[in-house]
Amino acid sequence: MTGVNRGLDGVAVAETRLSTMDGEAGELIIGGFPVEELADNATFEETLYLFFRGRLPDAEELSAFRSDLAECRAIGDEVLAVLRRAAEEEKPAMDALRMGAAAANLGTEDGDPEADALRVVAAFPTIVAAYWRYRVGEEPIEPDPDLGHAANYLYMLTGERPDERAVRGLETYLNAVVDHGLNASTFTARVVVSTESDVVSAATAAVGTLKGPLHGGAPGPVLDMLKEIHESGDPEAYVREKLEADERLMGFGHRIYRVRDPRAAVLEAAAEQFYDDDDDFFETITDFEDVAVDLLAEYKPDRDLETNVEFYTAALLHGVGVPQELFPATFGIARVGGWMAHALEQLEDNRLIRPESRYTGERGRSWTPIGER
Amino acid sequence: MTGVNRGLDGVAVAETRLSTMDGEAGELIIGGFPVEELADNATFEETLYLFFRGRLPDAEELSAFRSDLAECRAIGDEVLAVLRRAAEEEKPAMDALRMGAAAANLGTEDGDPEADALRVVAAFPTIVAAYWRYRVGEEPIEPDPDLGHAANYLYMLTGERPDERAVRGLETYLNAVVDHGLNASTFTARVVVSTESDVVSAATAAVGTLKGPLHGGAPGPVLDMLKEIHESGDPEAYVREKLEADERLMGFGHRIYRVRDPRAAVLEAAAEQFYDDDDDFFETITDFEDVAVDLLAEYKPDRDLETNVEFYTAALLHGVGVPQELFPATFGIARVGGWMAHALEQLEDNRLIRPESRYTGERGRSWTPIGER
Repeated sequence: MTGVNRGLDGVAVAETRLSTMDGEAGELIIGGFPVEELADNATFEETLYLFFRGRLPDAEELSAFRSDLAECRAIGDEVLAVLRRAAEEEKPAMDALRMGAAAANLGTEDGDPEADALRVVAAFPTIVAAYWRYRVGEEPIEPDPDLGHAANYLYMLTGERPDERAVRGLETYLNAVVDHGLNASTFTARVVVSTESDVVSAATAAVGTLKGPLHGGAPGPVLDMLKEIHESGDPEAYVREKLEADERLMGFGHRIYRVRDPRAAVLEAAAEQFYDDDDDFFETITDFEDVAVDLLAEYKPDRDLETNVEFYTAALLHGVGVPQELFPATFGIARVGGWMAHALEQLEDNRLIRPESRYTGERGRSWTPIGER
Repeated sequence: MTGVNRGLDGVAVAETRLSTMDGEAGELIIGGFPVEELADNATFEETLYLFFRGRLPDAEELSAFRSDLAECRAIGDEVLAVLRRAAEEEKPAMDALRMGAAAANLGTEDGDPEADALRVVAAFPTIVAAYWRYRVGEEPIEPDPDLGHAANYLYMLTGERPDERAVRGLETYLNAVVDHGLNASTFTARVVVSTESDVVSAATAAVGTLKGPLHGGAPGPVLDMLKEIHESGDPEAYVREKLEADERLMGFGHRIYRVRDPRAAVLEAAAEQFYDDDDDFFETITDFEDVAVDLLAEYKPDRDLETNVEFYTAALLHGVGVPQELFPATFGIARVGGWMAHALEQLEDNRLIRPESRYTGERGRSWTPIGER
């Protein structure tokens, strides 16, 4: 054992055919496609099929896959009661998603990992939407099997049929962030099944990892920031104030990318159309990005702090109509596709993931009875 | 990036003061104590205190800690309903534990990691016992705050006050397996909080990892095997038959230990007293171990297949009166102490754990409309 690698930086733990990034060039490949090629074109079901089967489906295959997925959306009354309690206690949506994910194999036959994986992916929007309905004092809305995965999620949030533009915007988001190499939550999913555990456990674990602000980020607070800047009308003053105070600027910087996150462009283009009216909110966002990138280069010339995915996630999901409190859970609704595909890939050719630790504690203590301590 | 290290073999990811093993010498240190010194002497509360505070408590501290822990044992009705459903569907106890763990912050104030950690540790026996009561068609039994952690677990399983010998046997087991370096479930807990997520998420994730047979093992099936051998009266014939058929012999071999797992001796000594009557079941076990170790050396001279912890876990937990179906979950009731201490340790001086992957998939695919596939 050499030194301790606390972040596992530069250590490759798995081979994957699912996605890869080039942090210097700002490239992201998902299922063989550049993210720009996949995100705008595919429905989320097509992306899932691509991940689970290695290629895009034809019309008949897609139709069957959509039906299979739609069939396993429902969650039981006991789980709903837990989600209601979580909502009443105003627990974060990610906590509710963790609770729902943990119980996702209730009412199903266990055993086939791919069937369990589909079930988990299908149940995630139902869990999040039910929690949200309780949060706003309404009853959950039953999933509509005639709607696609993305459309049905929006429908379950409001009870209204979403318009096509919103559905397309959400599909683009889900595709763009479905997978991103061996990020911390995806890695968690692989560690879980590396003991030959099951994919429901893997998804539940990954939700917990994604919950952390160092991973799932803070797209909700980013939106608050953008609104604040919009009201003030002075992006530069905001950025200078933050940087002078040596505070972190949300929405910039990424462990992998040294240039602009390629997903930022995809999400920016998708977001823009939701702000085409007389409101200049979107203009504020792009102005702010320009100012922030320039000033970050000035104030922190040795870091490569470029726009990350959080920034336009906030703009796009807000445009689509997803409530701000659900941004992290909506990230989970996308990323669970990657988690499940990675878990199945790990199980295909498994090895227990079991690193080591360096002991810094005491040795050779001997027992002292409690009266003598 | 050099080669892919699929098992993270030999990679140290964390420094820890909690435990360390010497696989060649067969030594295990827990909280500074050799396992042999700690396991038989400590109550589980003392071990937890040692883990959370770095030293053993005096009488007053221990009393306060016991009360604090006992106060957060109860779980809510919504969670009980989920456990009932899991029991009715005959889901494994580890699934129920995952569901209960995921909801462990319901009814609590969030925020303080150590308080959350105590809550999780306290709730685990309640979750497992409630599930078990439903499995046997009974109502759950409320925790008794006058009983210690181990005694109360046994009480909640049956509704009867356990005898001192059983409590002491269970304490010894819980102490012996509370922590074991950076095993896969403990590593999972650290990965989860490395994103600055919370310890409830970490515990839930770790349950899922522990569920896998490559980690949590199969102490239940080991007990079946021991009973079968006891009935046949011929350990050697059993072992030869397995080895001739090139089948794996349960209870032997470990990724770390090249000699007898030091926990085996501790658990063997603790187990023996439960078999001191005229039944020769325990004799069968020790005879079987001797025969198996000899024949493994003969059949597989290049492996170092020595007795692991599963073997006497089965004997001890069976002696204590824990139902066989609950052996893995009882392992979780012990190991959650380690998970929570590791998670708190990780949070004290955190860095995001984010390894890499090597891409083996396609590149440069371009989109084909569905009609043209």
